[in-house]
Order: sequence, then structure tokens, then C-alpha cells
Amino acid sequence: MDINAVYNDYLTRFNTYLGTIEYPAQPARLYEPIAYTMSLGGKRLRPVLTLMIADMLGAGGAEVLPVALGVEMFHNFTLLHDDVMDRADVRRGKPTVHCKWNDNVAILSGDAMLTMASQFICQAPSRCLSAAMDLFNRTAIEIYEGQQLDMDFETRNDVTVDEYLHMIRLKTSVLIGAACRLGALVSGACDADLDALYDMGLNLGLAFQLKDDLLDVWGDPDKFGKQIGGDIMCDKKTYLLITAMNEAQGVDRDTLNRYIGMAEATVSRGEKVSAVTGVYDHLNLRERTLAAINRHSERAVEALRQSTLSAAHVATLTALIQMLINREN
Amino acid sequence: MDINAVYNDYLTRFNTYLGTIEYPAQPARLYEPIAYTMSLGGKRLRPVLTLMIADMLGAGGAEVLPVALGVEMFHNFTLLHDDVMDRADVRRGKPTVHCKWNDNVAILSGDAMLTMASQFICQAPSRCLSAAMDLFNRTAIEIYEGQQLDMDFETRNDVTVDEYLHMIRLKTSVLIGAACRLGALVSGACDADLDALYDMGLNLGLAFQLKDDLLDVWGDPDKFGKQIGGDIMCDKKTYLLITAMNEAQGVDRDTLNRYIGMAEATVSRGEKVSAVTGVYDHLNLRERTLAAINRHSERAVEALRQSTLSAAHVATLTALIQMLINREN
Repeated sequence: MDINAVYNDYLTRFNTYLGTIEYPAQPARLYEPIAYTMSLGGKRLRPVLTLMIADMLGAGGAEVLPVALGVEMFHNFTLLHDDVMDRADVRRGKPTVHCKWNDNVAILSGDAMLTMASQFICQAPSRCLSAAMDLFNRTAIEIYEGQQLDMDFETRNDVTVDEYLHMIRLKTSVLIGAACRLGALVSGACDADLDALYDMGLNLGLAFQLKDDLLDVWGDPDKFGKQIGGDIMCDKKTYLLITAMNEAQGVDRDTLNRYIGMAEATVSRGEKVSAVTGVYDHLNLRERTLAAINRHSERAVEALRQSTLSAAHVATLTALIQMLINREN
Repeated sequence: MDINAVYNDYLTRFNTYLGTIEYPAQPARLYEPIAYTMSLGGKRLRPVLTLMIADMLGAGGAEVLPVALGVEMFHNFTLLHDDVMDRADVRRGKPTVHCKWNDNVAILSGDAMLTMASQFICQAPSRCLSAAMDLFNRTAIEIYEGQQLDMDFETRNDVTVDEYLHMIRLKTSVLIGAACRLGALVSGACDADLDALYDMGLNLGLAFQLKDDLLDVWGDPDKFGKQIGGDIMCDKKTYLLITAMNEAQGVDRDTLNRYIGMAEATVSRGEKVSAVTGVYDHLNLRERTLAAINRHSERAVEALRQSTLSAAHVATLTALIQMLINREN
């Protein structure tokens, strides 16, 4: 089995469906930013998981496509509003909506994307509509809580690793868990499968985010697609920085005190990235982060084994987990 | 029948239920703005309509309360995000969320209110869940379209009266229509009643907004609760201003050209409000607006008569419509 080919098949199926969605022409400043955002691409991990799991559990038909789109549209809505809040200029190599248009356009078209996501989830079969909407809404609330914690962390210097893991569980993992559970729900899966696949998604989400943190520092510049050290330059509270702030001593502590909070204009990128990476290296954080990624991906595979999925399907999803934690961008 | 007493009974019932809602304590900057917004009061027109109509059609029990709250929470979400977009400092006599906290808090807690509104609507009886969510989501989309049109109008000087009426139908009326229709839906009303009550709400909403426009200029300062002329001072494109911009000639045209767009700091409130009100008076706009309000309230009553409601209930709702269009604030 070539997991890349399997992934691409589902990706193509999703993108083909996405291409059939027509947005109203007017008001242009409401709908053009939505079409723009949805056309920027990305891995489409969440809808691929929804489609793949539904397929494995017997709901391979058209009924799962709107649900997968609802998950992806919700995800893109959160990115759109997060980019306003974080004043981010670029997303997937293109200007963000609030830069290309303005803040008001970004706020309102984001609101519309949230409602449109709900409309797509509401196309779930009526037998699971209530459960699908409850999961979707509960997940959305958790994600807002995660985003608020992430913003709260910006002004705190005493964030613990456990608090960080709790935050990324809310901000990132629960939607990956929900994407899996929705695929199972549409298929009429039993409660044990719903729980097992949600648990798989949660742990995959944690591993996925930790890999994100790791790639920013030790990614291969030729394959990463972004400049190395972006998180370091903006003092982003990642697993690496939080662990370092909790543990660094002596010269390493001095280095962090010197560089963290230093305005971007007053230090060269090379100098700051190299200094902070040095601290991470002293604390052995590359290996420790890889170990944490492996721990969560193993838990994801264990959860998978608790489900009633066939050995072949467990193997496919295990390969997918491996592919995602070994990714280079 | 004392319609004020009837209204206050439903208002008390709604506010009592609202008082039982507990918000999570953390993250405080996500939930405190929501509790703050929901505590600011207001007429609670939409949930009162939902409760009253459900009661009349036989769903007087507890099942309608979450749906009424969903409508009110959605309405408050739109006000919260609109205030960010319009840079409004005050709402119901208190600082707006983005002033009391900041823009990011307002964006994110607004997002959470939209999802919470959906959670309350999802508590509708399962037999009407799908119809309730479809109506709720479709209405939300129409309201975003209305808000975008309203923002588009700010930079245009050629808005027609028909375009304005189309905009307020979307921005204001459809939610009042939906509040009525949801009350009927929860009661298991027939399609004819659903349509008649929606139509009543739509026309009531138009009359309500036109009355809003009128009160800003000719309200009784002792009863209005806000300073007279707020819309005039910020060149808000109301029914009055749009009609005047389409019709004013000669000296009146010169007056509009002189004062509209004039920065607030460069003209006294008394001078600008008096000059623009003079143009409105020359065009007989007070009487013409009152006539438009009456036209829409009559259509609302006609719609009501198409329903299967008893004569007593039609009389109560007719009295409510009269009360709302005769209001002084």
C-alpha cells in the first residue's frame, strides 16, 4: 500500500467536491474572501480523515462529502479570524484576507464561513444530525477556548508544559478528533468505534502540532516551504520555548532573557535563531520532542486497535499517522 | 388586554431563564464578555416573539426557551461584531466589548456566541431540529449579507430607497421573521402558519427599523434615552438621508452637500442636526416615514390574519405591533 497515493485519492475526491461549490456573486466583499480562502489549498488533513474513516466504516457515498467540507470550512474560518487576531500577513504563501481586503471584511466573511460550515454539517443524514451538530458545536467552543488560552499565554512567562499541551489539545487536536468521529458518525459506527477514532484523532493532533513546532527549528530549509525560525523570531510559545523557559539555567537562561522579547528590528534573524536554537540543543529538545511525537503517535495507533476496523484498515491509518509525523513540511 | 403587561410577562419569563444560564469561568476573557453582553438587557423583542407565538400555538412549555435564547444570543453576537466593524463605543449606555476589552476579545467571544446560539437552537425538539437549524443558518447568512451591504453603502452616494429597504430587510427584518417562525416551528405549526408568521415578522421588522430611523430625528429627547440626531451626526444612511439624497434640490441640496461628510469636530451638533432636519422637514419626511411604517404594520396584520390563530391571539399580536410602532425609544 502506497499511503501517499491513498491520501491523494481522498484529497482529489475532496477537492473535486469543493470545486462544485458555488458562492453567491453578491455582496462581492462577503463571498470573494470566502472563495479566496477556500482556494488556498493546504493539506486538507481533516476532510481527508473524515472521508477515509467513513469509507472504511461503510459510508463511502456522497453523504459524507458535505460533512467533510463543513470541517474544512470551519478550520479555514478559524485560520481567517486567528490571522486577524495575530496580525499575520501571510497564509499559505498568500496575503491574508485582512491584508488583501481589511479587518471588517475578514471578520464578517469569517462569520459567514462559520455559518456555512454549520450548513454543511447539517447535511449529515438525519439519523445522526443531532449528534453531528452537538460534536461540531462542542468542538468549536473548545477551539475558541484554546485560541483564548494561546493569546493569554503571550503575556505570561510562567506557562507550564502541561498548560501548553492542554492548549494545543483544545486549539488543534479536538478538531482532528472531531473530523475522525464525524466520519464514523456518518457511517453509523458504534459508540466504541466513535470513541476510539476520536481518541486516535486527538493523539494524532498532538503529535502533528509537536511536529509543527519541531519543523520550525530543525526542518530542512529546502523542503519546509517557509523560512526556518519563524516561531523563534516572534517568540511564539511553542513546546520548545516553553520547555526551555522552564528548564534553562546559567548561560542558557541569560541567552533566553537576552533574545526573547527582543524587537525583530533590533536583531538579525540569523543571530536570534542561532542563539535560541543553541539553547534548545543544550536541552536536547530535538530528541525529546521527537520522543513526545512518538509517544502520541503510539497512543493514536493503540486507540485505533481498540476499534472494530479490519487489520488492513488499521494498517492504512497507521501508515497515515507515520506519514504525517515524518513529514518535512 | 394590557399589551404592556403581556409583553412584560414574556420578558420576565425569558430573563428568568437567561438568569439560569451559567458560563464557564475559564478562560475568563472568552466568557466574561459574553456574560457582560447578555446582561446589558434591551427590549428582548425577538425571544419575546418566539415565546409568545409558541404559547399561542400550543408549545408553551420549556422546550421553546432554549430556542428563544438562541435567537437572542445570535442577535447579541451580531451587535458585538457590528460594533467592532462600526467602531462604536457605546451600546445600551455601556462600553462596547472591544472598548472594555479589545478587538481580539470581541472577535473571539462573538464567535463563541454564534456557536452557543447554534447550541441553543439545537435543543429544539428533534422533529423540527433540521428545519430550525436550516432557518437559523439561512437567516444568519442573510444578516451577514445585510451587514456587508450596509458597509458598502457607506462609501456610495447613489443608494436608492429600494436598495435601502432590501438591506434592512436582510440586516434586521429576517431575524424578527425567523424569531416568529421558530416559535411556530417548535409548536409543530402547519406550513401556512409558518409562512404567515414569518411574513408578519418581516413586515414588523421593516416598520420597526423605519421607526428607529424616525426616532433618531423626531424622538422626544426626554423619552428617547439617547441624544437626538446621532444618525445625522455620523451621516448614517437611513431611510431619511437616502430619500433626501435622492430628492433634495436647490437650497436643500446645497445644505446636504455642505453638511454630509463634514467631520464631527468641525461643526456643532446643534447646527448640523438642525440643518439636516430642516431638509427632512421640507421633504415632508416625518409624515412620509410614518406612512411607510403604517403600510408595513398593516401588512404585518394582514399576514397575521392569514394564519389559523384565534381572533383573540390576532388581537394580542396586533396590539403588540401597534405598541412597537408607537414606541418612544
